[in-house]
Amino acid sequence: MELPRPRIGQSISELSTPLPLIDEEKLAANIARVQRYMDSHGLAFRPHIKTHKIPAIASQQVKAGAKGINCQKITEAEIFATAGFEDLLITFNILGSEKLERLAALNARISGLKVVADSETTVRGLSSAFSQARPLTVLVECDTGGGRCGVQSPEAAIALAETILTAPGLTFGGILTYPKADTEEAVQAFFAATLAGLAVRGIPCPIVSNGGTPSLFSAHKVTSATEHRAGTYVYNDRAMARSGHCSLNDCAMHILATVVSRPTEGRAILDAGSKALTSDLLGFADYGMIVDYPDAVISGLSEEHGTVDLSKVQGRRPEIGEKVRIIPNHTCVVSNLFDVMTFHRDGIVTRLQEVAARGLVW
Amino acid sequence: MELPRPRIGQSISELSTPLPLIDEEKLAANIARVQRYMDSHGLAFRPHIKTHKIPAIASQQVKAGAKGINCQKITEAEIFATAGFEDLLITFNILGSEKLERLAALNARISGLKVVADSETTVRGLSSAFSQARPLTVLVECDTGGGRCGVQSPEAAIALAETILTAPGLTFGGILTYPKADTEEAVQAFFAATLAGLAVRGIPCPIVSNGGTPSLFSAHKVTSATEHRAGTYVYNDRAMARSGHCSLNDCAMHILATVVSRPTEGRAILDAGSKALTSDLLGFADYGMIVDYPDAVISGLSEEHGTVDLSKVQGRRPEIGEKVRIIPNHTCVVSNLFDVMTFHRDGIVTRLQEVAARGLVW
Repeated sequence: MELPRPRIGQSISELSTPLPLIDEEKLAANIARVQRYMDSHGLAFRPHIKTHKIPAIASQQVKAGAKGINCQKITEAEIFATAGFEDLLITFNILGSEKLERLAALNARISGLKVVADSETTVRGLSSAFSQARPLTVLVECDTGGGRCGVQSPEAAIALAETILTAPGLTFGGILTYPKADTEEAVQAFFAATLAGLAVRGIPCPIVSNGGTPSLFSAHKVTSATEHRAGTYVYNDRAMARSGHCSLNDCAMHILATVVSRPTEGRAILDAGSKALTSDLLGFADYGMIVDYPDAVISGLSEEHGTVDLSKVQGRRPEIGEKVRIIPNHTCVVSNLFDVMTFHRDGIVTRLQEVAARGLVW
Repeated sequence: MELPRPRIGQSISELSTPLPLIDEEKLAANIARVQRYMDSHGLAFRPHIKTHKIPAIASQQVKAGAKGINCQKITEAEIFATAGFEDLLITFNILGSEKLERLAALNARISGLKVVADSETTVRGLSSAFSQARPLTVLVECDTGGGRCGVQSPEAAIALAETILTAPGLTFGGILTYPKADTEEAVQAFFAATLAGLAVRGIPCPIVSNGGTPSLFSAHKVTSATEHRAGTYVYNDRAMARSGHCSLNDCAMHILATVVSRPTEGRAILDAGSKALTSDLLGFADYGMIVDYPDAVISGLSEEHGTVDLSKVQGRRPEIGEKVRIIPNHTCVVSNLFDVMTFHRDGIVTRLQEVAARGLVW
């Protein structure tokens, strides 16, 4: 069955909804702005592909100056390896014989594969699947306050680095963190103490990797870092605008939706529900911002319906059949819902891109 | 690139994660239990395919006695029409010339297509795309308190039925609601008043359609209804157990996940994040229930990580590499995230089914 798709050259105002749209100019400006910042501070930049999941966008990022890319899954890395990328970092503890076998096959194909570990269990597993003939590079993930994965202290980071160094089939590649926003001092302190301990032991630490979009423009304060990773900056979203990273006008992704019902004076129903916007609130009280009606509140979502409270909208209210554009709370999760992404320039469709790494679970 | 998939006959304990699993026996029992209830009350039953999105499951439902199926999108209905289903109800206001054209093509293929409308705008649009040679059946959607789509009063329902009756190319098919749970009295009152008004005008109303899983076993209280629609009952989930529709033991879908990190004594990290569980809270404070550790709390999700608070877990706590099973808050949204669903009986994989209607946006 052939699914309906936008055509190149169509006006976005004609397109059927719900549909995420990427503004080419905003996309290019977001890529250029962050790369310029990284270049000016001598920081290597490693975009996280989770936000777009599209090799052609990663190519734009690398062409602008990114040194490599960041994936979260083995199968994502496989897709990007096939598309020609060599410097691939998978920021996940990989466990289990099936996955380790597949990881080893990938490592045999490309020269720049790297993964992370935050426990001896993960390191022993990795070691069991690799050999000195083609070793795997492993970075130690550090919890500098983000509260997700990572060793809890510089001492633990040093100890795990030593375990990696002595584990057959592995190479110690460096240290890494996914920090909370605006905690550059804590990251710097953790990294500096770890690096000092490694130096005392004569252990070289090639990569010192910091990450995150929300306080990306403070990345230079972590003077010990050699590289920064970020994903969301490429499209930006409502949460990034709130964090101060960008303005709402820098959000390259809009969700085009249609008003399908106006049951009451104060209520509109959109054809964009959680299958288009996701339920990610990220601290907001509602599910996205309607650009055309900023006082409207997307107060509830079911899978195919968005319920909009219009009670605070002064003047004209949207009519049945009218199309509106929504800035999503969180852009990365939207990419995972759609098989194809539609790009436009000045409202004219420029290209469609398959979201090649959507829905990958390994 | 060939993606890794479970094999028939494998033990689910060996499978790589994250992975949703459907228990064949619970699935069959859920289908049988609800059909038995509907049969005992003489209510026609119309399962909503949104929960599974798989024609083979819809076939099980129809084989058990369901009269037809409910879809939410034209392209979903196309997939199920191709799979041989004829009695298809699309419960959505369909607007826009591209979609109307596609809807007309579908109506030409099957005999039992029906849609809903809750406004004159929607009815006029539908009428413009259909002709008396092959008319489209349209039901009036009523808002009986659900607060989503629907006309607001029996008088408005009657008026819209009259509009449909006089609109070229359309046939009036009946009335429909998607109610709030436990409001059978309100639904009955709305339907009865509408039916009385239609009867006075001599307008036959073939279908009177009520819906929803949470208070499904009270559906017989809506004595005016001819049919009931429900989706979630087929798999069931944590929200349905809370509503009293089922027990946690009736939840046919579990998400198999692996503990990939134990950064602290009180924290575990799973490889199931919002890409596996979705961010749907549905009023819960956490993102699913870990069957094996019911006192553990899935306190936060990022796309690929689930953060688990273990502080209330007495005794043994999960170790790195250990697999756990999670009952999701909301099962329907999980189906939309995965290309393939894995079924098992007593822990042995019985079949894989493509989630054929996943990610459809039209």
